[in-house]
Amino acid sequence: MTPGASTLFSPRGSEQEIEEGEIFAPKFDANGLIVCVVTDVQTDALLMVAHMNAQALERTVSTGEAWFYSRSRRALWKKGETSGNVLHVTEMRVDCDQDVLWLRVRQSAAGACHTGRRSCFYRAVVHKGPDRPLVLAFRDDERVFDPAEVYK
Amino acid sequence: MTPGASTLFSPRGSEQEIEEGEIFAPKFDANGLIVCVVTDVQTDALLMVAHMNAQALERTVSTGEAWFYSRSRRALWKKGETSGNVLHVTEMRVDCDQDVLWLRVRQSAAGACHTGRRSCFYRAVVHKGPDRPLVLAFRDDERVFDPAEVYK
Repeated sequence: MTPGASTLFSPRGSEQEIEEGEIFAPKFDANGLIVCVVTDVQTDALLMVAHMNAQALERTVSTGEAWFYSRSRRALWKKGETSGNVLHVTEMRVDCDQDVLWLRVRQSAAGACHTGRRSCFYRAVVHKGPDRPLVLAFRDDERVFDPAEVYK
Repeated sequence: MTPGASTLFSPRGSEQEIEEGEIFAPKFDANGLIVCVVTDVQTDALLMVAHMNAQALERTVSTGEAWFYSRSRRALWKKGETSGNVLHVTEMRVDCDQDVLWLRVRQSAAGACHTGRRSCFYRAVVHKGPDRPLVLAFRDDERVFDPAEVYK
């Protein structure tokens, strides 16, 4: 944990303190990460789910813009750095046991997903019957930007 | 992975297949778990975030009711088994890289959180200024059931 981060977060207390208290004591997992759910503050739409490490959380708090940690790239990552769709954090919430964060954001542009869709959740899981593998059906999958143009 | 589960899920393919295909190939983490975001299908409210293992996902698909895996209790867990608030899955979605599930549910009763609140996200994270630790402010924290009565 960075020095800056350590002044922002408090150590974990009792179950009562964690669930009913006013002390922010986030639980990072064995890899130092915490799950973040991101929704649009105007529409309540679920946009994406990503991870933060302590440094990403610290930068998010200090800048008001969403920073994450990319597990595949093993790097700190500012959402919108390439695409321009920076996420402005209107409110951050934490769940009962403080191991999940919820960011309510105002988007700079449409299209939170790197595939060009509004949301990362553009496919439903469909069950075709017993002993049949689950398949995906596209829903709300219109592209609002061209990823080949944006990420070239 | 259980025999039943292995017929439901497909192996991971190329990035193109995973992101743009119709094959359901969920990515379980090193512990065999996948993150699940749960929202109310009528209000779009974020209720909770939990994990599933392959068996929990299989049972959710076969029963239409949400099953999870409790990391603290190391056990399969049917949501609502004690409280009565079973979650009926109206739609399941998966994100672009297929490592997060989204369950849109109809609740049997109000109060998805074990603390008695409608949602697990009843506290906002508040920044009081540089070098001041983050604190929590209660929001939408009315109790809709008494956990001492329900979980006695």
